[in-house]
Formats: sequence, C-alpha cells, structure tokens
Amino acid sequence: MSSATTPQPIRVALVGATGKMGRYAIDAISNADDMDLVATLSSKNPLEDITEAQATHVLDLSVPDISPDVVAFAVDNGLHTVVGTSGWTEDKRTALASQLANHPEIGVLIAPNFSIGSVLATRFAAQAAPYFDSVEIIEMHHPHKLDAPSGTAVRTAEMIATARHNAGVGASPDATKHDPDHARGAQVDGVHVHAVRLAGLEAHQEVLLGTPGQQLVLRHDAFDRTSYMPGVLLGLRTVASRPGLAYGLDEYLDLD
Amino acid sequence: MSSATTPQPIRVALVGATGKMGRYAIDAISNADDMDLVATLSSKNPLEDITEAQATHVLDLSVPDISPDVVAFAVDNGLHTVVGTSGWTEDKRTALASQLANHPEIGVLIAPNFSIGSVLATRFAAQAAPYFDSVEIIEMHHPHKLDAPSGTAVRTAEMIATARHNAGVGASPDATKHDPDHARGAQVDGVHVHAVRLAGLEAHQEVLLGTPGQQLVLRHDAFDRTSYMPGVLLGLRTVASRPGLAYGLDEYLDLD
Amino acid sequence: MSSATTPQPIRVALVGATGKMGRYAIDAISNADDMDLVATLSSKNPLEDITEAQATHVLDLSVPDISPDVVAFAVDNGLHTVVGTSGWTEDKRTALASQLANHPEIGVLIAPNFSIGSVLATRFAAQAAPYFDSVEIIEMHHPHKLDAPSGTAVRTAEMIATARHNAGVGASPDATKHDPDHARGAQVDGVHVHAVRLAGLEAHQEVLLGTPGQQLVLRHDAFDRTSYMPGVLLGLRTVASRPGLAYGLDEYLDLD
Amino acid sequence: MSSATTPQPIRVALVGATGKMGRYAIDAISNADDMDLVATLSSKNPLEDITEAQATHVLDLSVPDISPDVVAFAVDNGLHTVVGTSGWTEDKRTALASQLANHPEIGVLIAPNFSIGSVLATRFAAQAAPYFDSVEIIEMHHPHKLDAPSGTAVRTAEMIATARHNAGVGASPDATKHDPDHARGAQVDGVHVHAVRLAGLEAHQEVLLGTPGQQLVLRHDAFDRTSYMPGVLLGLRTVASRPGLAYGLDEYLDLD
Repeated sequence: MSSATTPQPIRVALVGATGKMGRYAIDAISNADDMDLVATLSSKNPLEDITEAQATHVLDLSVPDISPDVVAFAVDNGLHTVVGTSGWTEDKRTALASQLANHPEIGVLIAPNFSIGSVLATRFAAQAAPYFDSVEIIEMHHPHKLDAPSGTAVRTAEMIATARHNAGVGASPDATKHDPDHARGAQVDGVHVHAVRLAGLEAHQEVLLGTPGQQLVLRHDAFDRTSYMPGVLLGLRTVASRPGLAYGLDEYLDLD
Repeated sequence: MSSATTPQPIRVALVGATGKMGRYAIDAISNADDMDLVATLSSKNPLEDITEAQATHVLDLSVPDISPDVVAFAVDNGLHTVVGTSGWTEDKRTALASQLANHPEIGVLIAPNFSIGSVLATRFAAQAAPYFDSVEIIEMHHPHKLDAPSGTAVRTAEMIATARHNAGVGASPDATKHDPDHARGAQVDGVHVHAVRLAGLEAHQEVLLGTPGQQLVLRHDAFDRTSYMPGVLLGLRTVASRPGLAYGLDEYLDLD
Repeated sequence: MSSATTPQPIRVALVGATGKMGRYAIDAISNADDMDLVATLSSKNPLEDITEAQATHVLDLSVPDISPDVVAFAVDNGLHTVVGTSGWTEDKRTALASQLANHPEIGVLIAPNFSIGSVLATRFAAQAAPYFDSVEIIEMHHPHKLDAPSGTAVRTAEMIATARHNAGVGASPDATKHDPDHARGAQVDGVHVHAVRLAGLEAHQEVLLGTPGQQLVLRHDAFDRTSYMPGVLLGLRTVASRPGLAYGLDEYLDLD
Repeated sequence: MSSATTPQPIRVALVGATGKMGRYAIDAISNADDMDLVATLSSKNPLEDITEAQATHVLDLSVPDISPDVVAFAVDNGLHTVVGTSGWTEDKRTALASQLANHPEIGVLIAPNFSIGSVLATRFAAQAAPYFDSVEIIEMHHPHKLDAPSGTAVRTAEMIATARHNAGVGASPDATKHDPDHARGAQVDGVHVHAVRLAGLEAHQEVLLGTPGQQLVLRHDAFDRTSYMPGVLLGLRTVASRPGLAYGLDEYLDLD
C-alpha cells in the first residue's frame, strides 16, 4: 500500500489504566506503529484529561459504575470509543444509542469479549449448530474462578439455542434416566454446559457438535490476557469507520 | 407446519448403487419420509432405466469415466442431479454449465465432500485464517490410505492460503533451521500439512490457528460413511430450488 | 519363533453367543490362528455342551444371573475361564476364590472392561494423579445411554481418589462460589466427573490433570465393540498361565 | 504430621542463576518452606562460593561447557546435586559414575526434562505402545524453535521403538504409496514424528496410539517454564536419599 502521506496516528486515551487489562493495553498500544497513547487515566483523574490530551479515540477499560459516564463524555466530545468494561445492559445500550443519534459521525464499540478466536468460535458454533443432532459445551478455567458456567459459555449456549430454534431444530437427543449427582452438568436454554476447573489452565472452551457418523469440535484456548490485545487494536483501528453503536467484536470482522 | 396437501415425494434414481457409498445411500434414501428410491442402477443398467422409473432426481455415485454421461443424460431429461463422483475438473464443469444454460430450470450439485461437518470446518478455517499469525493442518486417516496428504487437507490449505492472500496476511512465522527428516511435513500453498496414519481411525482433520496468547482448533471426525448421508439428503432436498450448477455443498448451507 | 511342534490351539466354548459382545467374539475367535471355537451356547443350551465339545477354555459373556453358575461349572470341570459379564460383586468374587482354592491349577479372569486402551488410561490416570494439583474426568457417550456418569468414569474416579489419598494429596483447588445449575458436574470420591451425550460418539473418556504451568490429558476413544476383542483374546491366551482369580485386565498387562 | 523437631532445611546453591530457568528456580526455591537458597552463582562467581555458603545441595542450571566442572566440584565436596543442564552424553555420565563410586553416600540426578507431566507422558507412551498396532507423535511448539523434531519427541520415539522391539511388535501399518511433499513427517526409529510450529503455543506433545476400534491419546501441555519447577523441587527433596547417579526424573517417581 503506497501513499504520498502517512496517515495520522490514532491518539488514544486509556481509561482504567491501572487494572489488569489496562496494563496489557498500555503495552499493546505503545507497540502499535499507528497509535499514540496520549493519556492514561485511573479513577483519580478527571475526564477532562482526555480532551486536554487531544485524544481522537477513547479506550474504556474501567469499571461498570463509571463506564457509562466515560462513554457519554467521549461521545459528547466527538471521540470514537471502544469499551471493554462489563455491565452494559440492554437499557444502558439503548440510552447510548439515543445519544449517538445526535452524533451521527461517531462510532462506539462495546465488546463483551475482545478475544478474536473466542468470538469466531462462538459464531461458528451458532452457524453449525442447526446441522447437528447434538450440541454440548465444555468450558475449562483456572480454579480461582468464582462462577460456573462462564459468561462466554452462557452466551455461546444462548446463541446456539437461538440458531437451532430459528432453524426449527429440536432438542439434542438424551436418554439419560439416572443422574443423581448432576454429571450431565447445567442446561442453558436447553444446551448442556460443563465447567472444568483445573490448575494450570487459563480460559478454554470446546463446543462439541455431533450427528450420526461425525463430530465437529470448535475449541478455543486463551493462554493469557495478551490474547485480548489484537481485538482491542482491531476495534480502535475500525471504530472511526463504523458510526453508531456496535455490540460485539464480530460486527467488525469480515466473515462473508 | 400444517398443510392441506402432502408435498410430492422426491423420486430418486441412484446411479452407482453397488459401490460403498451407493449401499449407504440406498439405506438413507429408503429411510427418508420425503423420498422414494424408484431406480438403482449399476454399470450393467442402461440410463433409460432412470426415465422409465419416472424419477424426478438423479443421485450419481458412479465412477469418473461414466459420471459426465450420467449427468448429461439427466439434464437432457429435465432431472435435477446431485453428484458425488470425483473427477469433475474445471473443464468438465464448464461444459456442464453450458449445457445447463439450455435448461434454465434444472439444478445440478457437484459435491467433492458430502460431510456437512467437514465442509463447515473447512469454511470456518478459511474465514478465521486471516486473523491468526499461524495456521497448520493435521489430517489423520486409517492406515490403508494410499495418498498423503488427503484431498480434503489440500483443498483446506488452498482455501486458507487464498483467504490469507486476499487479506494481505503474510506467511506463518517459522524459525526452523534444522529439519533433516521433514518433521515439519508438507507445504501446500505455504500452509504446513501433516498426515497421520493410525489403525482405528477413519477420517479426521484438525486445523490449528495460533496468535500470541491464544489458539483456535477446528476439528472434524468422520467415524464412518454414514457421515456423508445427511449431506446427500440435503443436496437432494435443495437442488430443485437452485437452478444452474453448484460446486461444493457449502453453497447450499445457510451461513449468513 | 521356530518350533518342531505347533502348540495346541486353545479350544474355546463361548457362553452368551447371541448377545452383542458374543457376536463380535465369534468373529474374533474364529479369526485367531491359535484358537478353535468349539462350542457356542445361548440361554437354551445346557452347560454340558461345554464339556462335550472338549473345550479347554470358557469365555463367559452371558448375563449377571447366569454367570456365577457358568464359572462354577467351568472351574469344577478344570477349564480356564475368562468372564466379561457384569455383576461380579465382592461377595461373589470371594466365593469364587474359595472354589478356586480347590483347583490350584485353574485360572479365572473377571474383567469389568476388556478395552486395553481404557484399562491403560485408567491405570495411568491413577499413577499420575498424585503429581498434579487438579484432576477432573470428562466421559462422552452416545445419547442412548441411560446412566450418568459411566461405570468406567466412576471406577477411574475411585482409583484416582485412592491414589491421591495414599500419597497424602489433598483436594483439587476450586474457588467456585456460584453454580446454581450444577455446571461443575458430579463428584465421585471428591473427583469432578462430567458426562457428555452426543450423537455420533460411541464411548470416550478424558482425564485432565493440571498443575501450575502444565496439563496432562489421557484420552481414550472406543469407536465400536471391536475395541474389546484384543483384550478378550489376550485374556484367553494368558489365563492358563495365571492360576487363581484375577480381577481386571490390567493384572495381565506387562507394565513394569 | 506432628514432630518434636523440625527437619533441617535443604540448603541450596544455585549455579546458572541468571539464565531463564535460573530465574524461575530462584522464585521456586525461595517459596519452598523446606529450602533455603544460600547462594546464587553466575559465570562470574568462583565455585568456592558454594562451600562458603555451607550449601548441602547444588542445583546446576548452567551451560554444557561448565556443567561437568560444577558437578565434579559438588561431588568432591560431598554435596547432593540436581542437574538440568543439557549436554550430558553417555561418556560424561560414565565418568561421573566413576567419581561417585568414591562418594557412596552422594546422590546426583541428571534430568533432561524436569516437567513431571512430560516425563509421565513419555513413560506411559512406551508402556502402552506394544498393545497398539500404530503409534505416531505430534509435537507442537512456539515458532521460534530452531530444530524439528524436538528433543523430547525424539526421546519419546526412541523409548516407544525400544518397547515395541522388546515385545516383538512389528512396524505400524502404512499403505502410503504417494507422498511427494513429506506430509508423513519424520521417522525416528520407525516411529512417525510430526512437528507443528504455531504462534501462541509453548511446548506440547501428543502421542496417538491406535488399534482397530480404539485410540489412546497421551497429551502434555507445558504452558510456561513454571511447569519445570515442581520437578526441580522434587529432585532436590529426593536426591539425598538416592545415592549414586540417576538419569531421568522418572527414576524418582513412584509408579508401581
């Protein structure tokens, strides 16, 4: 790609710089040739630090209580925004979409999961699910995790269930009559989900799809948090060209 | 789905009834509520047996030398045709497309692989490949197989290479300096392909995609030839609504 | 191996010839060069058919109600016996051992599982378990199975728990606080066991062992019942040289 | 475990403290309740630092050129020694054994691999190999590795080949007639070995064992170098009770 002029770097203000994800993001943005990290904010900094630093983009990795204020401030100031904070319920997203209607040139991406591989695996699982009699999910995580099953497994099960329902596919066959100790695991929208907790692991998921004579297995392994950074950078590079609100990194992937 | 009238069954003439795939297809069609198997032809039967039986569809599972004649006869007689025979080179497909131009209502599907799971895995691999630094393929088959790597692995590698090229992605990183015995396997369009031959296995393939911090694995297992039958039936049920020539079962899958 | 005289073939009487396992055993024994299948008994045949056929070995694949009588008859008549029938409780095995004390030259093998791979995987799991912080089991079967978890998974968990207890190893770490739908599966002697039911599968099991920085996975796949036959033949070939009662095929494996 | 007197801590001198493994070892020993790290030596330190610090044990993680001198010094001074440095050929081990004959109370462990999981997987593979028709190895590493296949894969193949040879088992079946690009990988003592290089991975190995109807898979994943530390600590805790030279961590594992 030859060009007479070098494109302007993306000027990123990072909110939530002292959290775990924030520290990885500082490294990732600093190492990206096409980005400048112009401000890093923790809970002690006023949001005006963003505008004073003449940022063009905001990366919000703060906490659920603060995130709506960060994004509202960014949009009001005409800054494209990528959000990795959780807690963006449908109500909050609707309110944000209303605000964005007054800023038709501004893009916001809210991504529950920045791992491109995980996002692809979930999408593929939902696409494939109507073509198989059976689908089950096994998620595997480090033993310090408090909840079972994982949020990603729940979302994957929901997307699978919706895809099967829309295609008119019935429940997976299951003749189990005797399971006194719940070996068959949880059911999320009718999809069985199993949660393994194992020292040495980080975050892994397998979707098993079976039909007579064959099996399709979609497995994703996240070995550490660096796995989220390519998705964060992809979001920052793409958000300015996608005005309005996008929910989920898969809206930015080219999967035709 | 209620309806005043039951739809007419699909009247299938099977060519190549005495081969391995043919015998499985007899069972599969006989067990399908919406199909009648009205003729089964081996190499000893004249093609006129198809029309005498008033077939509406032809399933061709014959041999490469005969298949073009079977399909030409079917199209001339206004019959929708599903083809599982190999050997349909680009030249032969071009000739068939010319013939089909004179029969605009007739559909033909030529499918190099009827396993829905395998077709999906290959498609997903090509879609995901541009988002990962590294991609390699491991195919695993029974030890009676004569060729390495498998045709499916070669096609998968070609599709991956095309997708990466189109997205401007370079070669997978590889610092190997010393590999005197070819442990790194074959390269197909720059994609490393490994072939395992193991007693007890039938036909299996893994595509490994890796990038810092994460891995995506797409695995397909075909335990026996029944795994091809759902794809054959899907082809027969869909071909009448898809005039013209389709190459590859994935053209019939709903993957938006 | 050259020899002036060919060894006498093993003369096998098969009890339970009409069951699923029995039909596979007929094929396996008939194809073994060193064995003659001299009698096949169903529930309609008197046990005297065994001695009339001058069998030297009995293979019992009958049903739990009949099996003790079959074995008692065989031992009384001086025949080495391999048993694949379930239901041999500790009480019944103790009674059989008493009977065998009067026939010191006779060998009997009772094998809950004839799959050599499965037996090895379970043994390896128990050996490795004390060296890892965490152990969990995932068993995967066809969806027609009535019970969860599988008997093999239960035995594997029990052997793992015993090995860890004997080595003074504590429970696997698990911070789970919130699991309302039992995604964490069953616990057998403190070992988490997960049961997957999937069309296309037959009988599969994974033991996952993890400790900081590493994972060991022991996986066994039984694709069909032919997988039991090498173990049956190994039992028949070995039992005459192992007087007394052996419980479990692993007693016949050379694993030093 | 109550006791009137606390056992004396193991006083460890670490040689090779500035290498990658050395830095992990400093953490591991410092965190072990039963050990004191009394000296850390780099290439600039004289070996006398070991004795001045009144070490009881030496952990040698230096380089091949230096390691024999380190061990000779330690043995001469009556110190038990654990060695993780490579390059200990059979000649060098023979010379060391001669020296140890004069110090009958001193133990030395030379371990080519300190990963307990990897050592177990290799051992299990060799034990299982005679019971399966086919065995192949797939090793998977980060793409910065210079050699293919890995040293661990070569050792695993050699141990498998020896075990099969000793049991009188022939070659794995393989009908491959056409493999122009070496998709079947390397052969080490007749065992096929495949080497994958993938971004995101660290060090992984699968041994696939197959026989009609079944498969056994032994997989080990080393996610990072912390995986070696439990083996290092096990070596330090055990070496004083095992006089003489041990080669391979498996000699210290309790696997009856």
